[in-house]
Amino acid sequence: MPVQKLYVYDSTLRDGTQGEGISFSVDDKLKIVKALDQLGMDYIEAGNPGSNPKDMEFFQRAHRLGLSHAKIAAFGSTHRIGIRVEEDPNIQAVLSAGTQVVTIFGKAWDLHVHEVLNASLADNLEIIRSTVCYLSGLGKEVIFDAEHFYDGYKNNPGYAMQVLKTAAGAGAKTLCLCDTNGAAFPDEIAKVTQSVCTAFQNVRIGIHCHNDVGMAVAGTVMGVLSGAVHFQGTMNGFGERCGNANLCTIIPNLQLKRGYSCIPPERLETLKATSRLVYELANLVPDERKPYVGAMAFAHKGGMHIDAVHKNPVTFEHIHPELVGNQRRFLMSEMSGRSTILSAVQKVDQTIERDSEETKEVLAELKKLENEGYQFEAAESSFELVIRKMLGKYTPYFALEQFKVLSISPNPANYTSSAMIKIMVDGKSEVTAAEGDGPVNALDKALRKALERFYPEIGKMRLIDFKVRVLDGKSATASRIRVLIESTDGEENWSTVGVSRDIVEASWLALVDSVEYMLQKTRGK
Amino acid sequence: MPVQKLYVYDSTLRDGTQGEGISFSVDDKLKIVKALDQLGMDYIEAGNPGSNPKDMEFFQRAHRLGLSHAKIAAFGSTHRIGIRVEEDPNIQAVLSAGTQVVTIFGKAWDLHVHEVLNASLADNLEIIRSTVCYLSGLGKEVIFDAEHFYDGYKNNPGYAMQVLKTAAGAGAKTLCLCDTNGAAFPDEIAKVTQSVCTAFQNVRIGIHCHNDVGMAVAGTVMGVLSGAVHFQGTMNGFGERCGNANLCTIIPNLQLKRGYSCIPPERLETLKATSRLVYELANLVPDERKPYVGAMAFAHKGGMHIDAVHKNPVTFEHIHPELVGNQRRFLMSEMSGRSTILSAVQKVDQTIERDSEETKEVLAELKKLENEGYQFEAAESSFELVIRKMLGKYTPYFALEQFKVLSISPNPANYTSSAMIKIMVDGKSEVTAAEGDGPVNALDKALRKALERFYPEIGKMRLIDFKVRVLDGKSATASRIRVLIESTDGEENWSTVGVSRDIVEASWLALVDSVEYMLQKTRGK
Repeated sequence: MPVQKLYVYDSTLRDGTQGEGISFSVDDKLKIVKALDQLGMDYIEAGNPGSNPKDMEFFQRAHRLGLSHAKIAAFGSTHRIGIRVEEDPNIQAVLSAGTQVVTIFGKAWDLHVHEVLNASLADNLEIIRSTVCYLSGLGKEVIFDAEHFYDGYKNNPGYAMQVLKTAAGAGAKTLCLCDTNGAAFPDEIAKVTQSVCTAFQNVRIGIHCHNDVGMAVAGTVMGVLSGAVHFQGTMNGFGERCGNANLCTIIPNLQLKRGYSCIPPERLETLKATSRLVYELANLVPDERKPYVGAMAFAHKGGMHIDAVHKNPVTFEHIHPELVGNQRRFLMSEMSGRSTILSAVQKVDQTIERDSEETKEVLAELKKLENEGYQFEAAESSFELVIRKMLGKYTPYFALEQFKVLSISPNPANYTSSAMIKIMVDGKSEVTAAEGDGPVNALDKALRKALERFYPEIGKMRLIDFKVRVLDGKSATASRIRVLIESTDGEENWSTVGVSRDIVEASWLALVDSVEYMLQKTRGK
Repeated sequence: MPVQKLYVYDSTLRDGTQGEGISFSVDDKLKIVKALDQLGMDYIEAGNPGSNPKDMEFFQRAHRLGLSHAKIAAFGSTHRIGIRVEEDPNIQAVLSAGTQVVTIFGKAWDLHVHEVLNASLADNLEIIRSTVCYLSGLGKEVIFDAEHFYDGYKNNPGYAMQVLKTAAGAGAKTLCLCDTNGAAFPDEIAKVTQSVCTAFQNVRIGIHCHNDVGMAVAGTVMGVLSGAVHFQGTMNGFGERCGNANLCTIIPNLQLKRGYSCIPPERLETLKATSRLVYELANLVPDERKPYVGAMAFAHKGGMHIDAVHKNPVTFEHIHPELVGNQRRFLMSEMSGRSTILSAVQKVDQTIERDSEETKEVLAELKKLENEGYQFEAAESSFELVIRKMLGKYTPYFALEQFKVLSISPNPANYTSSAMIKIMVDGKSEVTAAEGDGPVNALDKALRKALERFYPEIGKMRLIDFKVRVLDGKSATASRIRVLIESTDGEENWSTVGVSRDIVEASWLALVDSVEYMLQKTRGK
């Protein structure tokens, strides 16, 4: 049986930006379009020129990108009632985007026609007909998004079907069934989609789900299994309220598990990297629990699970993580055995083996440190430094003589804290100071200021995440505190950890590891 | 038709803690058990006494909680091959938890029996039989978790069914079908669950899903629609890899959309608060995109959507957000539920009503503070002080002149930090100092030392919990920080909050609220 092709329609740049806290500059959008084209998307919905003037600049520049595969779609609504379609400024704005593909949404729920559009059911059909007819008459490929289709079908199935017939008759090439409120159940979607697919043989049927009942992926999958050949969604599930259907889950689901062709098979292993790029450009912290592409998706913690995965990965992994560009992780936790830490040890010294004395010693040290409150699951760079120190593969690049941090409140200055620091590098001392928002920020600034004289590359490094965890709340303000820091030099990110009863000291330990890790990287052999 | 009851089985405290970065203290676990009981869970799986010695203390204390509805379940595996069930230390550990309900997991996938257990298919059936038989013979209610059931059924349906028959024959009251690797599709789950339900008439069939293909909620829902009457999951979907099925989504899905009875209907509106409490105690940032309970779940951004919701909320909202204790948000023009805060206001002044000017003002202040990063769900005492200040029902018991906190490292003294403080009470000043583990501990000691001269009852008060949350990790060490403090005077516990870019300042604000709350209590009229 030949592999069935499904058309993948990405709306990250349009419906995705309806999500709270999500917005992209024109440059961001262009970068994302290139990445989505590389990934193998068939359609990229890139904006609504009628509602967002910034989108116009985007379309002008997008035409010069020279995409290898994807078609860009402009998005807009049916024309306004009371004027002719060719005189509607929004329709003209959509046309001026100059795309070959135009996606038009129209109402398929009679309640919306009456209460939102304030129109008759016949009027709504007429604006759908004339808009689609006009655009396809101009040679555009028209995709018709039937908004609220599943709610509409539930309320008035005859009218919802008439909406589709009208759009198809006017020349739409694809009819996309939208669950706009995101509350349709997979069994409903299966049943209704099947009826639609039976009724329409000569157009493509599509599916577009939202995640308001947590089943957008399942709804899309069931839509496809019931006959839809086109599906819409967003990278990472970005979108209004609970988000749109997540393409990073749906594509591997359908391609790896049910044998459909969504994107070229060799592109699948760039899925995780593309997901990261979109998070990065949106300036959002990645959700590491996301299927397939999250850092936790193949992370094993329980000892029995880890043992079983060593015996045969299929016991606790539903796919090979490499297929989507991800990797297996054994969490460095008290439940770990020797094989878990071996790969970390071999990163530092390849000659060491599972049964070497060194492996046992590292494991014992790991357990000791975890007992003190360290946790290396999310601080692999600190763990690498621990191993380097134990194996004699560590070069100290500076030594602390002393720091003093002073916080005053109320404080007449802009900053509440100041830090003085004295460090030694190769027998030379450097004394400096800095002010900051709180003791940790002041100390962070002072340390990096002092080091930059000796190691200018420290200037490229910045901290991008900072987490504080109180380990035993019961002793309250004298509790042990664990600080996790994530740093970047623009190319690589790394994470370090510090533990102390004193938050300044815990932060200091994590800061020092972060700087040391960077210097091992740039200066180590 | 009578409403069908479904049995809800929460595994937040057991399977949930398999998730990366998730761990609870014994006190946290006890708080969560109480909250889950209040919510109306039928079963609370609370630990594996055989694999985690910390769990034993929990069970001892849990029996004294006096739960109103929920049954606590201890969790463990079938007994080891080669020894008798009554001699297996893990089985004895499970029994020593003293729970009426015991959940036993056993292997239902032949591949696991061969490759992980290294046993024959017959041996596996025998340990299932003898373990379940032994425990039900002791009068326990036994729930049998058929691990990897759906993968097992795919590979060898006859054997998977034999596993179930064996457990049922040995006295298990519930057979729970687990999709342990989280990769079963909803259509598969529906088909297989239906076959099982047809074959077993006199036991309860349950479903337990993981989210590795992003369809754990859908799988659970389809399992129930196919005949399962018991379902397992975790609060907020906590769990290994991509997490378990999220009860905060499944419960309202089944109860509000399909008419099943999961929890008492009047408890549903505490769903969001319970979800928050669990996030808070896990010290995890809530995922605001989560269905029903996330802050974004009913947040409208698009202009057309907002207009439509004003005309009729049903146009873009699948339920009334209040049903689950959530609220609608218009991202551009903030407006929301006065009734939510009315009870807090009436605690301070009973004459104030829903439409009073004061209620509006408190609501506006709440929104302003939440925007700055405050959160009062876990800090009701701070919110009470906010209301008191606004309504003129607040007496200041002291004023800060200044504090200075100094941290030095390395420090020859026992303590790393020292704090000087000057406060004024009724025109009299007190200057004092204290040393501590870190700046916050030093400041906490100094403040209470200074106050005790005027208010000896401060001596009875102590801090019992301290939590730090970085609100916007991206600005790293200059991020805003939220500190939550829990205090007690031995009779009552209360919680307060402070927010600042400076951890010392944030802690100070929460400390001051804590002391003020105690003094309002002992000295206020």
